[in-house]
Amino acid sequence: MVGKFIVLEGLEGAGKTTARNAIVEQLYANGITDLVFTREPGGTPLAEKLRQLIKHENQEPVTDKAELLMLYAARIQLVENVIKPALAQGKWVIGDRHDMSSQAYQGGGRQLDQSFMANLKNSVLGDFAPDFTLYLDITPEQGLARARGRGELDRIEQQNLDFFHRTRERYLQLVVQDPKAVIIHAGQVLEQVTADVKVAVQKFVDSVALH
Amino acid sequence: MVGKFIVLEGLEGAGKTTARNAIVEQLYANGITDLVFTREPGGTPLAEKLRQLIKHENQEPVTDKAELLMLYAARIQLVENVIKPALAQGKWVIGDRHDMSSQAYQGGGRQLDQSFMANLKNSVLGDFAPDFTLYLDITPEQGLARARGRGELDRIEQQNLDFFHRTRERYLQLVVQDPKAVIIHAGQVLEQVTADVKVAVQKFVDSVALH
Repeated sequence: MVGKFIVLEGLEGAGKTTARNAIVEQLYANGITDLVFTREPGGTPLAEKLRQLIKHENQEPVTDKAELLMLYAARIQLVENVIKPALAQGKWVIGDRHDMSSQAYQGGGRQLDQSFMANLKNSVLGDFAPDFTLYLDITPEQGLARARGRGELDRIEQQNLDFFHRTRERYLQLVVQDPKAVIIHAGQVLEQVTADVKVAVQKFVDSVALH
Repeated sequence: MVGKFIVLEGLEGAGKTTARNAIVEQLYANGITDLVFTREPGGTPLAEKLRQLIKHENQEPVTDKAELLMLYAARIQLVENVIKPALAQGKWVIGDRHDMSSQAYQGGGRQLDQSFMANLKNSVLGDFAPDFTLYLDITPEQGLARARGRGELDRIEQQNLDFFHRTRERYLQLVVQDPKAVIIHAGQVLEQVTADVKVAVQKFVDSVALH
């Protein structure tokens, strides 16, 4: 049986690590234990090198287009060399970010041309998409306060607050349009976030079992 | 006055370095001395890092799409951060490869989807294009024999002979369609190649002077 691809999305500091642990616990409770974890950008040797360039290039200004192209280069390496083979082997893949991040950050935050974004996504990924996406919604103020508590911010995390407001707005638009995505209110107390994630994952597992 | 962007194209071993020297001599003879040299992929700090990944990644298979996306990421960095500013300052830019290489190698050699290639080029570069392209035509056999004589071949140079035949064929198609491109027969003796390049450059300089 082919595995499933579950993706966590959200602003920095939204609590993706906590949510991932909750997903793992709930999958284990269902006897689903053959799991693969990915993160984007990254997750393959080449994609991790690209992640470094995307997040930490500081010798010259990185154009918005170059950033997006590097993100997609990293993504197709991960999809072809890691995610698709794992799914084909029946493994479940839990992704820390996937394409929705580019749509939200580069499309919403950086306001890159929509038709360029759509063409690129379609040309690079075709109809490959997550089976289930949990979007952890948090205000930029709350998320950044948490992210800052963890240490130095990278090149993208150093954007101004407007950037993150546009990113969140695009996230919310995308999630509403995506029947395979749900919103988790990540500003709640941790126990409630964890509980909500587990409920959402159980619903997804149940829906899969019905097919 | 805005500068001009002259590009050298051709298979490995076609003699781009010799041709570049001939271009420089002829431009100097016309009093055009404020020159900038670029190479692709590369030519900026970030683009040179991408060049390393494109040419020497050996920890995992590089998908054709990731290769193309990295090439365009490097290209837009070079165009925006180096070429356009130089041209605006009235400098002439001599490029060792530009977009025609991607069309020939990735489009012809790797046989990537044509509409994907066209969309990507158009979305990333818009109407930016060289003012003059010299395509150094050589057989793959002759070119590779020369390139091998220079030492180890990189990831792209290790393709099979069919790849380079497809690449050359695409180059020839592109040059015929491009009113701003000429063919230099690079299989001739060096003195003749140099002489042909100089004649072509002089014609271009004359055509520019008329405007």
